[in-house]
Amino acid sequence: MEYQVEVEVSLKPGYSDPEGETTRKALIELKYPVNAVNVSKVYNIRLEAASPEDAGRKVDEICRRLLANPVKDNYKFKLEELK
Amino acid sequence: MEYQVEVEVSLKPGYSDPEGETTRKALIELKYPVNAVNVSKVYNIRLEAASPEDAGRKVDEICRRLLANPVKDNYKFKLEELK
Repeated sequence: MEYQVEVEVSLKPGYSDPEGETTRKALIELKYPVNAVNVSKVYNIRLEAASPEDAGRKVDEICRRLLANPVKDNYKFKLEELK
Repeated sequence: MEYQVEVEVSLKPGYSDPEGETTRKALIELKYPVNAVNVSKVYNIRLEAASPEDAGRKVDEICRRLLANPVKDNYKFKLEELK
């Protein structure tokens, strides 16, 4: 079975986000009333797995091994079975 | 009124995504049965606006002026009023 997975990796609170901060300053310069900007990354993954549980287990492993740094990143994901 | 906006900027179909492709190869090396990986970016923005319509209009303008490249990027956003 094939699954479509959306993984969002974002910085843990307290870690500085220079890209978000630069974006916020650029928006303020353009006169937009912006209070905060945080940037995160989304991985859209198409993955083969035997069941939703198997897919969830694999994705969790993938996040811990490759996509997220456990020191500074949080991650969350949602998955959907493809017909 | 303050709004929390989540903007997702992704590459239009047909544009090469080297980061996604490298991630896919790394996952294949780790023996995960991955068929495709695409990477996109999410901006979480806290913004002042008079109404949901005003917030939507501002965010659309922000995307076109700063966050998305109209040649190669698609964008979508959702917004939520903060209490």
